[in-house]
Amino acid sequence: MTANEQSIAILLYDKLTALDAIGPYEVLRNLPGWTVTFVGLQKGEVRTDSGRLGLTVDATLEELSDPTVVVVPGGPGQTALMDNEQVLGWVRTAHETSQWTTSVCTGSLVLAAAGVLEGLEATSHWLALEQLEQFGAKPTLQRVVEQGKVITAAGVSSGIDMALTLAARIMGDEVAQAIQLGIEYDPQPPFDAGSPEKAPDTVVEFMRASSRLILEGT
Amino acid sequence: MTANEQSIAILLYDKLTALDAIGPYEVLRNLPGWTVTFVGLQKGEVRTDSGRLGLTVDATLEELSDPTVVVVPGGPGQTALMDNEQVLGWVRTAHETSQWTTSVCTGSLVLAAAGVLEGLEATSHWLALEQLEQFGAKPTLQRVVEQGKVITAAGVSSGIDMALTLAARIMGDEVAQAIQLGIEYDPQPPFDAGSPEKAPDTVVEFMRASSRLILEGT
Repeated sequence: MTANEQSIAILLYDKLTALDAIGPYEVLRNLPGWTVTFVGLQKGEVRTDSGRLGLTVDATLEELSDPTVVVVPGGPGQTALMDNEQVLGWVRTAHETSQWTTSVCTGSLVLAAAGVLEGLEATSHWLALEQLEQFGAKPTLQRVVEQGKVITAAGVSSGIDMALTLAARIMGDEVAQAIQLGIEYDPQPPFDAGSPEKAPDTVVEFMRASSRLILEGT
Repeated sequence: MTANEQSIAILLYDKLTALDAIGPYEVLRNLPGWTVTFVGLQKGEVRTDSGRLGLTVDATLEELSDPTVVVVPGGPGQTALMDNEQVLGWVRTAHETSQWTTSVCTGSLVLAAAGVLEGLEATSHWLALEQLEQFGAKPTLQRVVEQGKVITAAGVSSGIDMALTLAARIMGDEVAQAIQLGIEYDPQPPFDAGSPEKAPDTVVEFMRASSRLILEGT
């Protein structure tokens, strides 16, 4: 089956991190004339990394093989996708005709495993950044990295910034600003601890020690 | 049935705004020893405001009648809850024993309709702020408003800031900072247009004109 024009496919899978997917969704679903579809290996529910949330896959990968925009979120379940030829094949095929191919967090490792990031600068969750190098990508500690039609974003919440950047590329700054105002994205975190450069050393060390838990969900 | 100690109930309903719920979820599900449960009128799938996303209700309101933390997200579907005695009764009962009662976006109107915000300062989506006054609350244009054990947050994405504030109240600053670093919440929006004071006038006017669409989903 072929995609609608102006279609956005967001990949869902078991043990993904919910905000990786829902941040971009909440921005992109407000693009006038565009349609977001959550796709996956099978229709029906997937459970997120915590096990405490179910999200619905509405279309199989076959049913949306050529979306205009591809969004691959991350999460511990991403490791099981790294040698899943059905998923990697879908990414490769979709990327051939996509206008934009994007990822959030460790979703970039799936793009990388599919060969999409070969020779490109790319980012990921700060704890997973170095892994990109194994696949020929150039790890870059930036929040949003644009390389032609490929946009990768850093950890989890960065998908909101990535999607606003993408919204501006697709429909212009005013539409992106209207979406930002609609979701009242005027961030005021109570702490300035959202990156390893800014967080207290003890907190960074704690998270490094817990990284297996965070990245693999084990 | 009674709740676990240290339980967090996030209310789901048809036509809610996904990020209102998923922002706080992604923070609070990382609180060590705490459990998030998505509750609703019936178990099973609800569809969000766009119609393009399904989320799963895992427990009925009866099954989690006394959570430690209550989170009420907003969205166009909130209007249908305003005279739903089953939902309002749940909010009232849960609030009697909760340690924290919170809302995101127009979820504060549900708290207000249940009588929880009587005499309190509170916030909501900037387009819905004035409606709080009808229920005896004092509208306050701040991103996160704390009044004793009641915390209300502004529109959609503000639930992340609210939940980090709450995480710090519950388990201290270091745990909240570790969660912030884990979700790499170091926001860098490409525009500074996330509040009516900051966005260009044309964008604010456009959103005001579209507000029926945004608030009622019609």
